[in-house]
Amino acid sequence: MVYMNSNKDIDMDRLHKQFAFIKEIDKEKEIIRQTPLADGSRKENDAEHAWHMAIMTMLLSEYSNEKIDKYRTMEMLLIHDLVEVYSGDTYCYDEAGKETQRQRELEAADKLFGMLPEDQGRYMRELWDEFEAEETAEARFARSMDCIQPAMLNHSSGGLSWLEHGIAVSQVFGRNKNTAKGSEVLWNYSKENFIRKSVEAGHLIGDMEF
Amino acid sequence: MVYMNSNKDIDMDRLHKQFAFIKEIDKEKEIIRQTPLADGSRKENDAEHAWHMAIMTMLLSEYSNEKIDKYRTMEMLLIHDLVEVYSGDTYCYDEAGKETQRQRELEAADKLFGMLPEDQGRYMRELWDEFEAEETAEARFARSMDCIQPAMLNHSSGGLSWLEHGIAVSQVFGRNKNTAKGSEVLWNYSKENFIRKSVEAGHLIGDMEF
Repeated sequence: MVYMNSNKDIDMDRLHKQFAFIKEIDKEKEIIRQTPLADGSRKENDAEHAWHMAIMTMLLSEYSNEKIDKYRTMEMLLIHDLVEVYSGDTYCYDEAGKETQRQRELEAADKLFGMLPEDQGRYMRELWDEFEAEETAEARFARSMDCIQPAMLNHSSGGLSWLEHGIAVSQVFGRNKNTAKGSEVLWNYSKENFIRKSVEAGHLIGDMEF
Repeated sequence: MVYMNSNKDIDMDRLHKQFAFIKEIDKEKEIIRQTPLADGSRKENDAEHAWHMAIMTMLLSEYSNEKIDKYRTMEMLLIHDLVEVYSGDTYCYDEAGKETQRQRELEAADKLFGMLPEDQGRYMRELWDEFEAEETAEARFARSMDCIQPAMLNHSSGGLSWLEHGIAVSQVFGRNKNTAKGSEVLWNYSKENFIRKSVEAGHLIGDMEF
């Protein structure tokens, strides 16, 4: 890394690319998810979701099953939905949308990360690929956050998106099939405090015992 | 840091406090700033603002005047507006609001960070105090981000919040009096690409030469 105190030796092409990317990702604030805010007043967007999970990771990384690099996990969560500025959000229970999701997101990743200087585009792409592959401890914990945060918000809001889409607890368990791989402690917490209570309140269809 | 694989030895009081805090800060998504989104469609909120600047720091920390811990800077930016869930946002050109801002925010910090387990509440408070004091290299760079990001969005949107409030370039320079202390390179970039172009376009009142 080079530190510079004047604009004399600045690579302006690099700087323009960086700011063009920073402006482009502003669109993530307009990618609406199905998850409601905790008070149910509206649905949250991708940027808010990423911010929330980065702070959750600051506070909850102590519960990871495996030792993780907290900061790499935070970076992964901050950028993991950026491709959606081109591909859109795919609701996790939209089975038709999920069939084309991977191809749409790969094309979006090429286009978006290709805007950056080559070294930074590669770094972002590696972080995104790592999140998607779920093969490192950091990616497993990040995925746990990505499942627990919406469960918490759904529970807080009175199950709004679960009720809107008629979701059953078996679907939530399917969605959470890897959550315990990141953190058994947090999966158990989410199961007992968010999921079970939502079934008991009639906000999730209780189609299985657990 | 302790890593646990069962709930057997979990301090449930600690975990409940952490999740209560995580739910409480969801309110940051409803604290509306004066800065518009890049496309001018609406004003952004504190959570979106923090997310945007954390990614900006990932990409732009190479331009810091001084060597910085990128990750501490990102954490600082992610949490720097949390107190506003109780104190509200104070527009940087609202001179009356700024007179009471410090006291309102100190009370909010006691209340909000006091919700966390003592060690984590202290860590958050230290980060926030550091940001506010602007006495470390990380805080100086974070403050630069906090001034450059809104200038970029205002310029992109056609100067929406500057026009709405009748802002002059001398006020923007006042607001940015410490931006060059974090990064001379990025201050020069913002000045030439966002501020000067906005004056030329009539989106900022040109009451001084620069």
